[in-house]
Amino acid sequence: MSPIERLSREEVRSVDQRTIEEFGLPGIALMENAGRSVFELLMAFNTTGPVKICAGKGNNGGDGFVIARHLDNAGIPVQIYLLTNPDQLRGDAAINYQVAARMGIPLHCDPDLSHPDVFCDFLKEADWIVDALLGTGVQGKIRPPFSKAIQFINDAAGKKLAIDLPSGLDCDTGLPLGDCIIAQETATFVAEKRGFSLPESRQYTGTVHVLDIGAPRQIVTEILKKQSI
Amino acid sequence: MSPIERLSREEVRSVDQRTIEEFGLPGIALMENAGRSVFELLMAFNTTGPVKICAGKGNNGGDGFVIARHLDNAGIPVQIYLLTNPDQLRGDAAINYQVAARMGIPLHCDPDLSHPDVFCDFLKEADWIVDALLGTGVQGKIRPPFSKAIQFINDAAGKKLAIDLPSGLDCDTGLPLGDCIIAQETATFVAEKRGFSLPESRQYTGTVHVLDIGAPRQIVTEILKKQSI
Repeated sequence: MSPIERLSREEVRSVDQRTIEEFGLPGIALMENAGRSVFELLMAFNTTGPVKICAGKGNNGGDGFVIARHLDNAGIPVQIYLLTNPDQLRGDAAINYQVAARMGIPLHCDPDLSHPDVFCDFLKEADWIVDALLGTGVQGKIRPPFSKAIQFINDAAGKKLAIDLPSGLDCDTGLPLGDCIIAQETATFVAEKRGFSLPESRQYTGTVHVLDIGAPRQIVTEILKKQSI
Repeated sequence: MSPIERLSREEVRSVDQRTIEEFGLPGIALMENAGRSVFELLMAFNTTGPVKICAGKGNNGGDGFVIARHLDNAGIPVQIYLLTNPDQLRGDAAINYQVAARMGIPLHCDPDLSHPDVFCDFLKEADWIVDALLGTGVQGKIRPPFSKAIQFINDAAGKKLAIDLPSGLDCDTGLPLGDCIIAQETATFVAEKRGFSLPESRQYTGTVHVLDIGAPRQIVTEILKKQSI
C-alpha cells in the first residue's frame, strides 16, 4: 500500500505556480476544474439545493463562484454571500465573480459582516453550506469578519462542505488558527493537506475527498519524490 | 415532453461568443470543460486505453489536447496525431497543445499526412480513436489531408468517438460533405446539432451524448426561444 500523499502549504502553492508558469496552463482552467469537481461531488450527494456559498476574497472564493455557476446551470438553487468588497477580488476569482453576477445568481455583499442577521437568514434552510472563505495560504489568528462568520456557519443547521480545507484550519499543522469551520465533508484539491495527518484534524474536515484540478501529474510525483529523500 | 434542443452552426458560434464576450468567461474555461466532459465519458465507457487522438488545427483539435491531458493524468495511455503544423494552432488550442507537449504526451506531427503508413500504425491497437479533426464550422467539400485521414480512421479497427460532430458531417443538414467519420459515439457540446434531426445522420454519429461546457444556461434558453418564434 502506498502512503497517503500529502502536500504542505508551500507545495500546494508550487503545484499551482509550476502548472501555470512551467506548463503554461492558465489558472482559470485550474479554477474551473476545481469548482466543477466540487459541483460533481455535490451532485453525487444528490443535492437538490438550496446550496449557500460563503465566499472570501481569494481563490477559495473563486472556486465558490465556479461551483455556483455549474449549480445554476444544472437548475439547482444557489446563492452566494460575499465577505469582501468585489473590488478586492483579483484575477481568476474576479473573472468568475463577474460571470456569476452576470448570470443573475443571487449575491449578497457584506465585506465587514455588518449585517449578521442577514447572514444568519442566508444560512437558513440550506441543504449544503459551502465554506469557500479561506484557503491553504492562511496563517495566524483568524480575524473578523471571518472569525464571526465561521461561528455563524458552525451554528447553522445545514450540512457543511469545506473547499480545500476548513476555513481556519492550518494547512501544515492540522490545528485550528482560532475559529475553525466544522465540516461534514471536505473537498480538497490534488492531494490531502499535510495537516490532515493529525487525527484531531478530522473533527474539522469530516470526510476528505481528493479532487482533480487538471494539474500535470508529474508535478505532484516530483514533489512527493522530494519528500521521501 | 419537450422537443429535443438543437443548435445550428451559427447558434453554436453564438453560444461561444456570447459566453466569452457578454458573460466574460474565457474560452479556455469552455475548452477545459469540453475536454474534461469527454474524458469523463471515456471513463464511463471504462476505457483503459490506448486512446488515439486525431487532432486538427481548430478548437476541435484543442478539445482533443484537453482530453489527452486528463487521460494522461489518470494514467490512461494516450497519443496524439496532429494533422497541422503546430505554428498554425491559435488561441486556446495552441495553449493546450503546448501543455500537452510539455507533459510529454506522445505527439506525432504530420500536417499533410505525408506519412500515411505512420498514421495507420498510430491508429492500430486503439481502444478508442478520438476524432478531433473538424468541428461544426466546416462547410464545403472535405479536402486533403482530412479526406484521406477520415478514410484511414474509418478503416481502422478501434471504436470511434467523434468530438462535437463526426468530421465531415454538415452541422446544419446532417449530410456528409464528402468523406465523413463513421463513429460509434458522438460527444456533442451544449445541445444536439441541427443536422442530427436527419435520421440518416445517425449512421455517422452513432449514439449522441450531450455534454456540458459551462456556458450560462440562459444563452441556450434565449436561442431556443427565438427558434420557436
